[in-house]
Amino acid sequence: MKVEPVKARKGMKVSELLEAFSLSAFNARRLGEAGKLWRKMLEDDAFIFLTLAGAMVPAGMRRILETVVSNGFVNSIILTGANIVHELCEALGFSHEIGSEKVDDIELAEMDINRIYDVFVPTSAFVAVEEFLSKLFGQLSGNISSYEILWEIGKNLKNSFLSLAFERRIPVFCPTLHDSIAGLHLMLYGKKVVLDYKKDMEKIIELCSQKKKFGIVIIGGGVPKNFALQAMLLSDGFDYAIQITTDSPQFGGLSGATLEEAKSWCKLKSDAKAVTVYCDATIALPMLVCYLIDSFSEGDV
Amino acid sequence: MKVEPVKARKGMKVSELLEAFSLSAFNARRLGEAGKLWRKMLEDDAFIFLTLAGAMVPAGMRRILETVVSNGFVNSIILTGANIVHELCEALGFSHEIGSEKVDDIELAEMDINRIYDVFVPTSAFVAVEEFLSKLFGQLSGNISSYEILWEIGKNLKNSFLSLAFERRIPVFCPTLHDSIAGLHLMLYGKKVVLDYKKDMEKIIELCSQKKKFGIVIIGGGVPKNFALQAMLLSDGFDYAIQITTDSPQFGGLSGATLEEAKSWCKLKSDAKAVTVYCDATIALPMLVCYLIDSFSEGDV
Amino acid sequence: MKVEPVKARKGMKVSELLEAFSLSAFNARRLGEAGKLWRKMLEDDAFIFLTLAGAMVPAGMRRILETVVSNGFVNSIILTGANIVHELCEALGFSHEIGSEKVDDIELAEMDINRIYDVFVPTSAFVAVEEFLSKLFGQLSGNISSYEILWEIGKNLKNSFLSLAFERRIPVFCPTLHDSIAGLHLMLYGKKVVLDYKKDMEKIIELCSQKKKFGIVIIGGGVPKNFALQAMLLSDGFDYAIQITTDSPQFGGLSGATLEEAKSWCKLKSDAKAVTVYCDATIALPMLVCYLIDSFSEGDV
Amino acid sequence: MKVEPVKARKGMKVSELLEAFSLSAFNARRLGEAGKLWRKMLEDDAFIFLTLAGAMVPAGMRRILETVVSNGFVNSIILTGANIVHELCEALGFSHEIGSEKVDDIELAEMDINRIYDVFVPTSAFVAVEEFLSKLFGQLSGNISSYEILWEIGKNLKNSFLSLAFERRIPVFCPTLHDSIAGLHLMLYGKKVVLDYKKDMEKIIELCSQKKKFGIVIIGGGVPKNFALQAMLLSDGFDYAIQITTDSPQFGGLSGATLEEAKSWCKLKSDAKAVTVYCDATIALPMLVCYLIDSFSEGDV
Repeated sequence: MKVEPVKARKGMKVSELLEAFSLSAFNARRLGEAGKLWRKMLEDDAFIFLTLAGAMVPAGMRRILETVVSNGFVNSIILTGANIVHELCEALGFSHEIGSEKVDDIELAEMDINRIYDVFVPTSAFVAVEEFLSKLFGQLSGNISSYEILWEIGKNLKNSFLSLAFERRIPVFCPTLHDSIAGLHLMLYGKKVVLDYKKDMEKIIELCSQKKKFGIVIIGGGVPKNFALQAMLLSDGFDYAIQITTDSPQFGGLSGATLEEAKSWCKLKSDAKAVTVYCDATIALPMLVCYLIDSFSEGDV
Repeated sequence: MKVEPVKARKGMKVSELLEAFSLSAFNARRLGEAGKLWRKMLEDDAFIFLTLAGAMVPAGMRRILETVVSNGFVNSIILTGANIVHELCEALGFSHEIGSEKVDDIELAEMDINRIYDVFVPTSAFVAVEEFLSKLFGQLSGNISSYEILWEIGKNLKNSFLSLAFERRIPVFCPTLHDSIAGLHLMLYGKKVVLDYKKDMEKIIELCSQKKKFGIVIIGGGVPKNFALQAMLLSDGFDYAIQITTDSPQFGGLSGATLEEAKSWCKLKSDAKAVTVYCDATIALPMLVCYLIDSFSEGDV
Repeated sequence: MKVEPVKARKGMKVSELLEAFSLSAFNARRLGEAGKLWRKMLEDDAFIFLTLAGAMVPAGMRRILETVVSNGFVNSIILTGANIVHELCEALGFSHEIGSEKVDDIELAEMDINRIYDVFVPTSAFVAVEEFLSKLFGQLSGNISSYEILWEIGKNLKNSFLSLAFERRIPVFCPTLHDSIAGLHLMLYGKKVVLDYKKDMEKIIELCSQKKKFGIVIIGGGVPKNFALQAMLLSDGFDYAIQITTDSPQFGGLSGATLEEAKSWCKLKSDAKAVTVYCDATIALPMLVCYLIDSFSEGDV
Repeated sequence: MKVEPVKARKGMKVSELLEAFSLSAFNARRLGEAGKLWRKMLEDDAFIFLTLAGAMVPAGMRRILETVVSNGFVNSIILTGANIVHELCEALGFSHEIGSEKVDDIELAEMDINRIYDVFVPTSAFVAVEEFLSKLFGQLSGNISSYEILWEIGKNLKNSFLSLAFERRIPVFCPTLHDSIAGLHLMLYGKKVVLDYKKDMEKIIELCSQKKKFGIVIIGGGVPKNFALQAMLLSDGFDYAIQITTDSPQFGGLSGATLEEAKSWCKLKSDAKAVTVYCDATIALPMLVCYLIDSFSEGDV
C-alpha cells in the first residue's frame, strides 16, 4: 500500500487529518492508526481501560477526561495520585497558571508557587484540597480501596470527570494514591481508615474476568500501565492496546517498553492489535478524542 | 493567565484545536504558540526560511511542502539531499510504500527494498531518479550552486514543490546535496560541473541582508538548521524562530540545542520570539499548516 | 575554568576517568560531578536515600546494590516491586538470561519466557518466588508496612542486598509492592495481612526529621523518586541530590523533571547541590560506585 | 547465557568494567559488546572509519581523538566542520570554558561568549582561527577536497589529532566543512579555491574498494554517518559497525536509525556484526578507548 502524501485543507477537521495520517509514516501514521484502533475497540464493544501517568490534569486535559467518560470512550480509568490532587484543585475552583520552565525556582518557592514544567500552582490551591479531603477522610473508616475513595470523592464533587465516573459507576483506580498529597492527607486525617489495594486488585481482576474483549489505552506508562497489564496475568490478555509515550524502549524501563514485549508476558494476547505513538500526550490524546467524537453519532457508543 | 482545559468538540477543526492548545501546557501549548508565531511572521511580512532535516518526503509530507510554497508560507527552503532524491522518486511516478520497522532487513535487501523506519522504497525507484539526473547533470557545466541545480530540477519536473519553487523563484538550498544519491549521480554524470556551495553561501547571506524582518521554521536540526543560522552570523539575527524537534538539549548537539543558545551566538536577536515544539514533525507540521490556511483568506499572505 | 580534554591511559581506573570527566562537558562532566557530590554527601555524614526505578536487578545491578549497602554508601533504599521480585529470583538461585530485543515475543510466550528488553526470565523462576512468598506471607498478620515486609524477606534470604539491609536495619521501602507479582502473592496468600503504606509514610517522615543533612540519589524517577521527595514536604528539603535518568524535562513528567523544579516545591533546599546525569543507569551507577570505593579507605564511611 | 551481576571493585579499571558490562543488560551490555567488537575489528585488521557528529571537541574529547589516531584505532575520520573549527581554537592555544546551560544567553551575547550547552567559547578564540585560516586559504587554489584541506591544516598545526592524521596520511573527511565558520572563511579568503566534495567522494569510494574488511564507528549520526555509509552503496558494505547515539529510531531520522535498517540498503553486509549504544558519547567513547588501550600491548595494533 502506498504512502499517501498528507494534504492540508481549509477548515480541515482533526478527524480528517487523523484519517490522512493513517496512510503516512512515522508517528503521524501511528496516531492515525491509534484513532482507528480505539474506534474499533468501541465498535467491538470491548471493555476499555485508560491508564494515565504524567501531569495530564495540570496540563489542561481534564475536559478531555470528562469527554472520554461522558461519551463512554472508556470503561475504567487508572491514574496517578497527582492527577487526582490537581483535579481536586480545579474542581474546587482553583486554577493552574500558564507559567514557564525558564524561571528561578528559588524565587517561585519564596512566592509559594509550585512548578510543573511550564505550569504554576499556588500552594493556596492545596489548602482547599486539604480542607476537602480532611473532611471526607475523617468520615471514612475501615479497609477501603482506592476506587471506593475516588467514587466517594466524585460523589462530593461537581464539575469533574470524577463526579461523572461516580454517576456512571465507572471504576477509577489510583494505585499510587498514597504517593501523593492526598496520601499525606489520608495519613493525617484518615486515622480510622486503611487504604487497602488488595481490594483494588480484586476488583480489577474481576473486571478482567468478564466475558468480553478487552482494550487498553496507555498514556505515559508508570504504575497505572503496570497495574492494568498485570491484572491480565490472571486472565487472558488484552485484545487491543494503544500506548502514547515519550519514553523509548532502548533503556529497558517499563514506561518505554513495546507492546510486543507485553506479549511475551501474555499481558496482551498473541494476536492482539497494538499501536504505540511516540508523542506528547497533550497533543495526541485530544486529537484521538476528536477523532472518536466524529466517528460516532451521539448515543452510538 | 489560567491554563484553560482543552475541550474536544464534534467536527473540531485542526486550527481550532491549535488555538485551544495555546492555553494548555507542555508541547500542546508550544504547538499552539508555534502556530501563532508563524502567523505573526506572515502578518509582519517577514522573510521566512524553512529548514528541513529528516525523511519528511518519504513520510508523506510532500503535499504539505507544496502547500507551504504555493500559499507563500515560506520564502526559502533549506533541506537535505535525501528529501530531494525521494521527492524525485515521487514526482517521477514512483511511490513510497507503507512498511513496518518490525521486519527482517536482510530479506528486504534480497528483495531490493530499502527501508526508512516504517517506509519501504524499491531500488527500482532510484533507477528512474538516476535516469532523470544523469540526463540533467550531463547538460550542466561550470561551478554551480545547489539552489541553481534545484531550480534546474524544478524546471524539468511537474507536480512537485520543486517545480512550484522554480516558478516562484523561491531559493531552495541543499547544503548536503553531495551527501545523497543525487550527489553520487553528480559525481558520475556531471563531469563538467562542480557543485560550489560558496555560491549558496553568498546567496543566503545576500537574502539575510535584505531590509526585512526574518523568521525561521526549523524542522529537525542538522545541517539545514546550521546553514541558515550561520548565515545570520554575518547579519543581524532572526526576529522569530520556530523549532520542531525530537532531540533533547541535554546531549549538547546542535539539533537539540535550544533557540536561547542561538541567542548567545547572535544568530537570533536578543528580543527574538522563539518557540520549540518537541514533537514528531509528521504530526506537528501538517497541523501548523492547517492553522495557517485557516488564518488567512486566500490571497492574504 | 577550562574544559580539560580527557586523556585515556593504559590501565586507567574508573575512578580516575570519572575524575577526568568532571572537567569535560555534557553528561561526562555531570557524571564526574555526581561522583564528587555523592562522596561529599558521605564526607558530610548525610543521611542518604537511594531511589530505584527501572529493571535494575534484571539488568545485572544486584551486586552493585550489595556493595552500596555493605559499604554504607546509602542509609535507606526506595524501590519498585519488580526489583524485589527479580531479586528474589536471583537470591533463590534462578538467573536472568542474556536475551535480545530482536525476537518474536509470541514464540517467547509459547516457551514460557518473559522478556525485559534484552533480558529473558523463564516463568519457572517465578514459581520459586511464589513458593517463598506464599509461605512467608501466610505467616504474617495485621497491618504491616512495606519496609517491615522487606526486612522479613531479608531475614529469610541469603546472598542478597535485602539480607544485608535487614542485618544493618537499613529501611528498604517499596511503595509499589502491591503493583508487582509480590503484590499478587500478598493478595492470594496474605489473607490476614494488610499492606499499610501509612506506616511507610510515617517511617520515612520520621527519618526525614532527624537532625542531619539529607542526600538523595535518584535512579530513574517513578514512584520511588516521588515518595522520597514528597516526604520532604513535611520536613526541610534535601541538601544534596543526584538524579540519573534517561527521561527528558520537556514532556512535563516527574521522572524527567529537573531537580531545580523540585526546589520550587521545597523538596530540595534552595541552596541544595544537585546534579542530573542523563545516562542509562546500568552504565552510570556502577561507575559511581567504583568512584566511591576508591574514594574511601575501608572503614572510612 | 546468564546475566552476570556486575561487581564493583577497589581500583577497578575501565577495561575491567567494560568486560563486566558485556554480560549485563541494556546499554551497559551494549557498551561492553562495542568494546569487544572494536577490538575484533582491529584484530581482523579491518579498515576502520570513525564518524563524528556533535560537539565532541568542545566537550573535551580531542585528546581521545589523538589517542585514537596515534594508536591506530581508526584508519579514517569523517567529522563535522564545527569539530574542525573548535579543534583549531584549542590547537592555537585557546580554551573552551566550563560553563552552564542555566544562564542568560542575552548576557552571554553581550559579553561575546558563545554557548554550546554547558561549554563557553569567547568570540576572541575565533579571531585566531580566522587569522590562521585566512592565511592558509589565501595560499590555496583550484579544486580541492576537504581531506586535502584538512591535511594542509594538519601540516601547519602542532599538538592536534589533525597534525597526527597528516603525519600518518590518515584521510580526515569533512563533508560539512562549508557549513561551519571555516566554510565562511573559505568563502571570504579562498577566492581562488573551490571546495570540491566530488574529490572526497572519489577518495572514500576508493578506500571502500580496498581488498579488506571494513569497520565503522559512528558517533552521533548526521552527515558523517551518511557520508560513510553511502560510500558503501558502490562497494560491498561494512563488516562491522558500532553506533553511539542519543537519538531514537522511532522518529524515522537517520541519526537514530538502527544498523539493521542499514542492512536493507546493503550499506552493512547481511552478516555484519553491529552494536548500537544509546549513550552520550562523552561517556562512551573514552571508555571504549580505555578498553582498546588495555586490549593491546603497544605496537600490537
